[in-house]
Formats: sequence, structure tokens, C-alpha cells
Amino acid sequence: MMIPLSLSVNIPTTNKPRLVVIGGGFAGMHLIKSLKQAELQIVLIDKNNYHTFQPLLYQVATAGLEPDSIAFPLRKIFKHQKNLFFRMAEVIKIDPAQKTVETSIGKIPYDYLVLAMGSKTNYLGMEDVKKYAMSMKSLTEALDLRSLMLQNFEAAILATDLKERQSLMTFVVVGGGPTGVEMAGALGELKNHILPADYPELDLDKMQIHIIDAAQRLLPTMSQEASKGAMNFLQKFDVNIWLNTKVALYDGFTLTLDGGKQIPTRSVIWAAGVMGAAIAGLNPEVLDKNNRIHVDEYSRVQGYEDIFAIGDVAAMQTKDHPHGFPMLAPVAIQQGTNLARNLQHLLNNESLNPFHFHYLGVMATVGRNQAVVDLPFVKFQGILGWFIWVFVHLMTLVGFRNRVVTFVNWVFSYLSYDKGIRLIVRPFPPRT
Amino acid sequence: MMIPLSLSVNIPTTNKPRLVVIGGGFAGMHLIKSLKQAELQIVLIDKNNYHTFQPLLYQVATAGLEPDSIAFPLRKIFKHQKNLFFRMAEVIKIDPAQKTVETSIGKIPYDYLVLAMGSKTNYLGMEDVKKYAMSMKSLTEALDLRSLMLQNFEAAILATDLKERQSLMTFVVVGGGPTGVEMAGALGELKNHILPADYPELDLDKMQIHIIDAAQRLLPTMSQEASKGAMNFLQKFDVNIWLNTKVALYDGFTLTLDGGKQIPTRSVIWAAGVMGAAIAGLNPEVLDKNNRIHVDEYSRVQGYEDIFAIGDVAAMQTKDHPHGFPMLAPVAIQQGTNLARNLQHLLNNESLNPFHFHYLGVMATVGRNQAVVDLPFVKFQGILGWFIWVFVHLMTLVGFRNRVVTFVNWVFSYLSYDKGIRLIVRPFPPRT
Repeated sequence: MMIPLSLSVNIPTTNKPRLVVIGGGFAGMHLIKSLKQAELQIVLIDKNNYHTFQPLLYQVATAGLEPDSIAFPLRKIFKHQKNLFFRMAEVIKIDPAQKTVETSIGKIPYDYLVLAMGSKTNYLGMEDVKKYAMSMKSLTEALDLRSLMLQNFEAAILATDLKERQSLMTFVVVGGGPTGVEMAGALGELKNHILPADYPELDLDKMQIHIIDAAQRLLPTMSQEASKGAMNFLQKFDVNIWLNTKVALYDGFTLTLDGGKQIPTRSVIWAAGVMGAAIAGLNPEVLDKNNRIHVDEYSRVQGYEDIFAIGDVAAMQTKDHPHGFPMLAPVAIQQGTNLARNLQHLLNNESLNPFHFHYLGVMATVGRNQAVVDLPFVKFQGILGWFIWVFVHLMTLVGFRNRVVTFVNWVFSYLSYDKGIRLIVRPFPPRT
Repeated sequence: MMIPLSLSVNIPTTNKPRLVVIGGGFAGMHLIKSLKQAELQIVLIDKNNYHTFQPLLYQVATAGLEPDSIAFPLRKIFKHQKNLFFRMAEVIKIDPAQKTVETSIGKIPYDYLVLAMGSKTNYLGMEDVKKYAMSMKSLTEALDLRSLMLQNFEAAILATDLKERQSLMTFVVVGGGPTGVEMAGALGELKNHILPADYPELDLDKMQIHIIDAAQRLLPTMSQEASKGAMNFLQKFDVNIWLNTKVALYDGFTLTLDGGKQIPTRSVIWAAGVMGAAIAGLNPEVLDKNNRIHVDEYSRVQGYEDIFAIGDVAAMQTKDHPHGFPMLAPVAIQQGTNLARNLQHLLNNESLNPFHFHYLGVMATVGRNQAVVDLPFVKFQGILGWFIWVFVHLMTLVGFRNRVVTFVNWVFSYLSYDKGIRLIVRPFPPRT
């Protein structure tokens, strides 16, 4: 197929079919890596020039790691992959009739299209929360949260009104999944080990940390033992746990809960849900109520022969998993590699293999020596779980340098009860 | 002295005299550290919550280090110093008659005032350069420069017009002092070792690096041997060196030199000069033509009994140094510690010691294995100088964790001919 240069944002013409992949997260990255030998011209589009290791974003937000530890340049990941062309661009919409993707840098035609845009924060329709709460789905959001947290402590020192000071020292995490629990635990570590030395003028006992969830237990997708362990660990840090509780509204100063209870706070961290980051141009009927894209067990989008979706944005139901799959990195990685194999089969006119998920376990950490781990046949809470958590996260980071820098930072934090990176590099602007 | 609370931005009242220090750079930091036992209430004001190790800013700009390697939280530096109160604020002006400092968070009265604001970029009155060129005096400026450089390469790939592509791949460093030379060397390393693998679609031989200086040699404040060494090393990287040359104007697209020669470029890095960052409120007669503050050999500002200036912002002439001192970290550090001793003498009604400078040497690196070092009695060029440069910079970084993280990054860069941090975390907005 020959593509006119004017339409191709300067991608060389070729006789090979072109695969366009939108998104360089776990799903897209593993798909492309597995297609290194494929007779395809692969074009990866991402709005960032890096892959983000999302499970550790909360450590960037809480001054434990810098962006370079958990982000890896996409061009570096694929530097030996000759069939890959990276374009940093925002996708505006796709046009299945014309077989093109419309982007901020121009139209990109495709023969095959893989949607791997991941997920975005779901504010459950609450505009006030969207406006005033902090989210943690990207590096810049995590850096903003770090700045805001430190700015609020600088402001607390200046506050002569004790109620204002208290609201600056109150942090509410909404959402009791792994992200929320890890964030609350990291805040607990800051309160107990780090901030008292930085702010001798403040009484850090007055720092309040709350975690709120609508379910009747924390970590509702994990085992009962994990929920209980996480609850115990958070209570050691004096974290206030609100179960069976929903948020009603937040105006930037006061968080109101469903029952009417009010918590004055300047920092609400929203980790209560994510939704698919589907884009315009698809038949709306393929979207489920959570904005994810219905796909069959071969990752094919319903009603399209040449469009696939993998990872968080894909809503796949199989015979083994009639209720679908959770939005987790292992699902994304395995769907990426399975689709890579199937694309090869497609090119060779061979039959496709349905997706089978190999469950590897779920885990969450709640500060030093404290983690909860559900593996397929065994569960851990406490220090052994924590060592497993540390090992798995170090090993799944992309790049040897990233692993070593992260390891060095973690060893220092562990030995010194400190987190080194309490920098307000870009102040977070006041919201009005 | 009792200070009314409303005037004191919440600093506790005390009977001890209050010393207000503006700026937590090398001068202010070393002054305060040396006053740990002093019977003073010390208030440090800085617009950032961290100390910046400015000599390595160019490595943040060229994707070699992250901010946490060269910045250190001020609260952490002083966490065991009970007589120190830190306030993150912008200084608006000082009022010597009322003995107060007016800041973004309120008025702060002082008994003694130390001005240690350092220096800022001197655009030599060229408004167009100020608008369109990149500077490198702060962490955020260094991060902006990193983003712009990488964004320009992403844009170069898309450029179908070859002249536009060339201007996106052309980098001009104005200023042949240590900062300019180190920046040009780091760009040379990127061109030769790193960018070709990232951008196989571009012909990196076409990347142009220029360095421009009005003097007749690079590193004019160093030895002839150092100038010659730096020139040789930069020429190995194909850096174009323009001596006896001044910039006439820059419109964001084309840099025009004094003789009329034009260089189409989207990236001009301005390292051609700095000036004192003096603030409003002083008698204008104490300022020299470079906006530095005239002080006597005890760091006292002319005409004031209770105001001192140290570091880059101070223009001190002594019998030994009738032409003053260069704007260098060792001068700032030594002036800080000398003033600390003199403030103690002042409190004890003892006589003051004039400042004597101990010259320690000057150095600059131009990429791996290549540095020029002028020590008091010996000069080095090449690999031995490079090891001295690496050792001195590692040892003068604040904080053991910073040293280890920097060391790890440097070892990786050295072994792999790579720089790991090619992240566009916050895109630099297009300037109009």
C-alpha cells in the first residue's frame, strides 16, 4: 500500500501493512515489543514521549521518587526496533471509514489499528470534585500533588487561624483500592517519620489522614485477609478509615460526605475510580457504561475487522471470565502479547488464539515492612509481603538504570526513615 | 526585642536579636550553618524550598540528571538547627528605615539583614533575546530547556521543509564561560552518542552546535592552557566556535551576529552573563553597574550598619583584590563563613576580621574524559582533569543520597554512552 506523504506525517512509504498503535502503556509497549520481527510498519502514537510505570506514581507524589525512576523514554525502549516509528501527538479521533487516525500533527492512515489508550480518572459525574480534587493518573498530576502537599505545610506555618491550619494539615484519600491504600500509607509515613523534623513549628500529631470507600472493606477486589491487614497497618499510622461511605461534594475547602458529615480539608486525593479512555469515532454501541470498548476474546472491537483494543480501555469477556477483567498491568501485558501473536497469525492467514489470562496475584504496600499480597495459592501480610512487593516492583520497572536509582532511593528511605525529594519544583497554582 | 505577631508572619517572639537572611544559595546556606550556636533568631527567606547546586544545572537541561540530584530541601539542610526559621516567600523590597523586609507573605522585621540573593541572567539590555532565548539559572529553566530540546527533535522529524528541519536541529550557546562550554560539550555528547539511536529517521550529522563569545578565547577567566584544551575538546564534537563575536538580535527563528552573519535556529541558550539580583529599597548609590551591591571587606553594605551582602550579589573590593571577586561558589561560601564569624564578634562587641579569599581553582568539563582544571599551582587538561572534576562535584553536592544518585547516573552514562532522562515531563509552550 502506498501512502501519500502529505497524509503520513512524514512516515516513509512502504509495501508492508501499517499497524497504528495508540498508547505506549503496558499493553501497547508489550504488543510492539512482541512484534519486533513482524513484517509490519508500526506507528506508535502517544501524547508523552515516555512510558509511565503507573503503580509507583504515588511515590512521586509523596516525595519518594523522581519522574526518571518510573518513566522511560519510548524512543529508548524501541531503539533497536527498526519497524517502529514513534510520533508524539494527541489523538483527536479515529475515522474507521477512511481508515485514518486524526491527530494534533496530522492524519495517519492505518491498515490495522490497536487502541491501547488505557484509563482515566472517573469523577463519577461530580464536577466540583473534578475541579478541586487532585488526581494521580499521570506524572504531572503526581508532581502537582507533591507540590500542593508541601505548599499546604508551608501555608500551615503561616496560618494564625487554627481551623485554617487544621484544614491545611488534613488529607483525604477517596477510594480504598490499591492506589488509595498505598497513598494513605505513604502519607502516614510522612506524618510519622519525615514531616516532624521538617516542620518543628507545627504539631504533626494534628495532621489528619482519612481514607474513604463506598464498599464495606478496603481493597474490595482482594482477599479478606488483605483487607484486614491493610486496615491494621493504616490504623497504626492513625489513618481514619471510613467504609460504606460516599462523597457528596467538595468545594475546595470542605468535603461533605453522604451522611452530612463535613471534613475541612484543602487536599482531597481522588482515587475512587477509573474509566476507559476511549476516543471519538467508534460506533458508540461498542462502549460499555464505564467508557471501555467491547472486544471479543481475540481483542477485536465489535463490528470492526481491523480495529483492536487491549489493556484498561478494552472490556473483554471470555467463557472463563464472563464478568471481564480488572484494569491491571498483568492483563494489559498479556493481552498485548496475545494480540501480537494473533496479528502474526492474521498476516499468515492462520487461525487466531483466544485470550487466556494467567492470574499472577495482586498486592499493595502500606509503608515500610507492611504489604498485603494475594498470590494464586498463598497470601502474605506484613514484612514478607513487603519484600515480595519491593522485589516485584523493582523487577518490573523498565530499564536497569531506573531499577538501580529506585533501589538506591528505597534503601536510603528504609535506613534513614526519610524521603529525599521534598522539592516544590513547580508550585501548584491556587484554584479559584 | 519584642516583635508584634501580626508583623512577624507567625515567627515566635524572642529576646534574641533577629537575623534575616535573603537567599539559601551557597553564601546564605554556609552563613547560617556557621551560626548554629549563635544567640540569634535566624529567619531564612527563599522563593524556593530548596538549595540549588547551580554548577550542574546544565546536566538537568541535557537529560543527565533529575532535579533531586542537584537540589536539596532547605528544611532538611537545617533540620537540626533550632535557631533557624525558614519562610518560603518572594521578597518585594526592603525598608532600612523601618528595619523590615516586605515579602509576599507579609512584613518581616530584622535587627541584622544579610542579602544573599545571588545573580540573575544578564541579557545586556536585549529585549528580543530575553523573550526568545533560553536561560539556565534555575531548575525550572533547566527543565524547560530539556523539554524544548527534545520537542524540537520531535518537530524535526515532522518537518518536510529541510530548512525548517535544520533550524530545529541547530543549537547556539551564547557565552564561552564555564557554563557555556559545559553546555556545548553536553550537546556534543548528545549529538554523537545518544540522539542517533533515538532518532534513526534524522541524519544527526546535520545537528549543528555553535558557541559564541565576545572575547578572543573560550574560558577567558581561566588559563591559556584551559582555553586551548576546551577548544580542542569542543572541536572533536564538531562544535562551531565563534570568538570575538557578539549577538546582534534573535527573533526566535534567526540569530543575527554582529557582523551580519545569520544562523537559523530555534534554540538559543543564553549563558553570556549574569548580574547581581539586588532588590529595591537600598540607596541606589550602593549598586555597581552590574547591579551588585558595594560592600566593605567585612561584607557591610556601604552606608548601613546592620545590612550585609555576600556571594554573587556582593561587589567587594579588598586591598588584595582591588578589582573584586568573580561570581563563584568558593567566594560565596567563604564570604558566608567569614560573615558568620563577624556577626558573632559583633554580638560580643569584638573587632571584625576582614575577608581573605583562599583561591581553590576553577574547572570546566567538556564531556567524558575531557575537562580543564586550573588549580593554584598546577593545571590539568583531559582525563585526569575530568576525574578531578567528577570527584569535586560529587563531594560538594549536599546530601549523601544526592551524591549516590548522581554517582549512579554518571556511572551508567559513562559505561553505556547514554543519558537516561530524555523525558518531556512538562512541554515548553510555544512562544509567540
